[in-house]
Amino acid sequence: MNTAAFGTDSDSLIHLVIVGSGWAGYTLSAELDYSKYKVTVISPDPITTYTPLLASALCGLFGFKVAEEPVRRRSRPVSLYQAVVDSVDFGSKTVHCTSKINSFEPERIEVSYDQIVLCQGCKGNDFGIPGVGEHSFAVRNTKDASALRNKISDILEKANLPTTTPERRRELLHFAIVGGGPTGVELAAELFDTMHQDIAKMFPHLEEYFNIAIYDVASNILSNFEEDLSTYALESFRRRGVKVHTSTHITEVRDGSMTTKEKGEIKFGILIWATGNANVPLTEKLNCRKSKEGLVRLLTDDQLRLHYTNGRIIRDAFAIGDAADIESLSLPTTAEVAVQKAKWLAKNLSANGEGTPFKFHEKRMVAYLGASAGVWQNDKVKLRGRLAWLSWRSTSLSWTHDWRKKILILVNWTLNYFYGKEIARI
Amino acid sequence: MNTAAFGTDSDSLIHLVIVGSGWAGYTLSAELDYSKYKVTVISPDPITTYTPLLASALCGLFGFKVAEEPVRRRSRPVSLYQAVVDSVDFGSKTVHCTSKINSFEPERIEVSYDQIVLCQGCKGNDFGIPGVGEHSFAVRNTKDASALRNKISDILEKANLPTTTPERRRELLHFAIVGGGPTGVELAAELFDTMHQDIAKMFPHLEEYFNIAIYDVASNILSNFEEDLSTYALESFRRRGVKVHTSTHITEVRDGSMTTKEKGEIKFGILIWATGNANVPLTEKLNCRKSKEGLVRLLTDDQLRLHYTNGRIIRDAFAIGDAADIESLSLPTTAEVAVQKAKWLAKNLSANGEGTPFKFHEKRMVAYLGASAGVWQNDKVKLRGRLAWLSWRSTSLSWTHDWRKKILILVNWTLNYFYGKEIARI
Repeated sequence: MNTAAFGTDSDSLIHLVIVGSGWAGYTLSAELDYSKYKVTVISPDPITTYTPLLASALCGLFGFKVAEEPVRRRSRPVSLYQAVVDSVDFGSKTVHCTSKINSFEPERIEVSYDQIVLCQGCKGNDFGIPGVGEHSFAVRNTKDASALRNKISDILEKANLPTTTPERRRELLHFAIVGGGPTGVELAAELFDTMHQDIAKMFPHLEEYFNIAIYDVASNILSNFEEDLSTYALESFRRRGVKVHTSTHITEVRDGSMTTKEKGEIKFGILIWATGNANVPLTEKLNCRKSKEGLVRLLTDDQLRLHYTNGRIIRDAFAIGDAADIESLSLPTTAEVAVQKAKWLAKNLSANGEGTPFKFHEKRMVAYLGASAGVWQNDKVKLRGRLAWLSWRSTSLSWTHDWRKKILILVNWTLNYFYGKEIARI
Repeated sequence: MNTAAFGTDSDSLIHLVIVGSGWAGYTLSAELDYSKYKVTVISPDPITTYTPLLASALCGLFGFKVAEEPVRRRSRPVSLYQAVVDSVDFGSKTVHCTSKINSFEPERIEVSYDQIVLCQGCKGNDFGIPGVGEHSFAVRNTKDASALRNKISDILEKANLPTTTPERRRELLHFAIVGGGPTGVELAAELFDTMHQDIAKMFPHLEEYFNIAIYDVASNILSNFEEDLSTYALESFRRRGVKVHTSTHITEVRDGSMTTKEKGEIKFGILIWATGNANVPLTEKLNCRKSKEGLVRLLTDDQLRLHYTNGRIIRDAFAIGDAADIESLSLPTTAEVAVQKAKWLAKNLSANGEGTPFKFHEKRMVAYLGASAGVWQNDKVKLRGRLAWLSWRSTSLSWTHDWRKKILILVNWTLNYFYGKEIARI
């Protein structure tokens, strides 16, 4: 079977299969030495999403293009199949997958490898609550964000009709965000700013009905940050008018409404699900050592190698990203961890277990609270307010590798800063 | 019924209803004197598409946002209902319409007016050929273009699978464009450049299968241009590798193939329908004077007023855009005509029939042939090659009113010009 797309002397190259195209898979594919490796990425999505720019892209001039990075690049002879991996046979070194391309029938494909890196990531966790999949929006990639933007536009048009009653307007313009982590907080902040600073100029008669609210089972938001920063975030939101409903348990979701244990039925126009992670089927199915509690993850050693359940090392198989964790060094499911592991692996893959063990370097944790406020923290410093917001901006810029995108984003931010976001609309 | 959204002294204002948000409706809403008028736009689309930028937006860094102009602006107190007009009662001055908002049930709405301007435009003409609506893509607005881009991406991924045969690749990568007017020619040129200059870098093993082809019933392309320019365009395309099939009659379209009188069955991956105009139902239904041959259009006098079929003037009712024509001065269905009529009407609406008659000023006719070639013509000058391409660029820039968009487009063009379109992908 032909799995090579580039190069002529491909026989002398090691064929590396990367499963997944998120932060981990994308970074690995970008950092590898292509004079040694022939790379095939297998992923249902040929585009990597820069999630820190996603909430901003929802509202800006550029649309989603600035938050997207195609895995295939001119400068990089990487091959990609748009498919979902069903299983991996570590013995015969074969990947079994099924193509997943819109408007075409799925096809079974087999790909053999010399080395494999699993970074299939996670999916959103609905915590077994019925109706979440059908009646809520996710914000994990630009397709999600695009669907969300269209829905917001539809909601505004519906609320704007002369036949829509004030009560119905209030229901429609209640945007409920479930999850008080950085994603939910950032989305609430950007949405609140865009609605009140920009959309309200075009629908002034609707502004009184706007209601952006965060719901979380925990007693606080941003619970991964230090307590004073998390309290600052909560107060900053409340002062501004973003409603925060902590200690709230959702038991069922329907079209346009949800049931909570504490407050009974709550109607909404849009429900955005921005909570934690759950496993994709491949992770459940793989026959290897996994963690036992919480989110079940693939357990690697400090060389990021996979092991069979009996402890034996699986030959030429590695795992990074949200679906993987190190047995002796458990780390959270963040982009920072995924990127650092991917960079380490790009350097140490050829050492095949004989490299210096992977070490994590704590860097930063940022959340945008809207209207030039924010919180920012690393292992040495923590910031709040305008300074944190500036740090957030510079961090966001550093995510994209492309200096031309940086120029365009900077030009746009500058124009917006001085003249307002005239063009912005959902 | 409340149709006012802005202003406090709205009783002293004339309530103007604009039907449609294309070039005509958008320009009129942008040029009106809002100290005299309260404006309600009724249109199924709250966004105006800058069609000259659409083909470029398909392939560039910005996505479609630069080709979009929302009707509602901060600076303009315009009200808009996302609805389709079913009928107009000129006697009681009432518009009957049905809301058209995705994921919400349609609702009947009535809006009364003091003055009305009909600019509902046209839809694509399938010439009664069965299957066109279901199995082809249009390129009339950014939603169309977005669907087309997703399809191209799917086609590339399908062709790229190791299980896809060379013969199937050839079928899939045949992009058939029906219509040799400026829209079809421009789209073919941009698609050809993007496929061969950018996409080919990421799918080098697929380039040999690329086949961009234009089909037209006429014996030439760009038949509205002078003959030597139209011949230049044809030769320029053929030399470069865009296939041009003139004098070809399509009799049926199916999923993935079409039947032609001259060449029998032709398979394709994508069929793009870029031909002439047909009437929307409202135009058919309106009880007023219309033209008798070809595309049936609403006939106005040189004050752009509508008349009953018995010749009597319809009080306070005007028509502009593609669906309208002047009895004594027939003009083509172009953006230039629509914009000039809209500007004239914005100035002369209050004169209500007593203004200086509308006159058309011939300006320019441009088509982009890709790779820095083009043809450009006005009543005094005609250009071809690189100079025409530069004129095309400056014309495209002049379409957008927003100077910040101009800056961003210029920065992007400059970066692309010097460094290539690394980011470009379908």
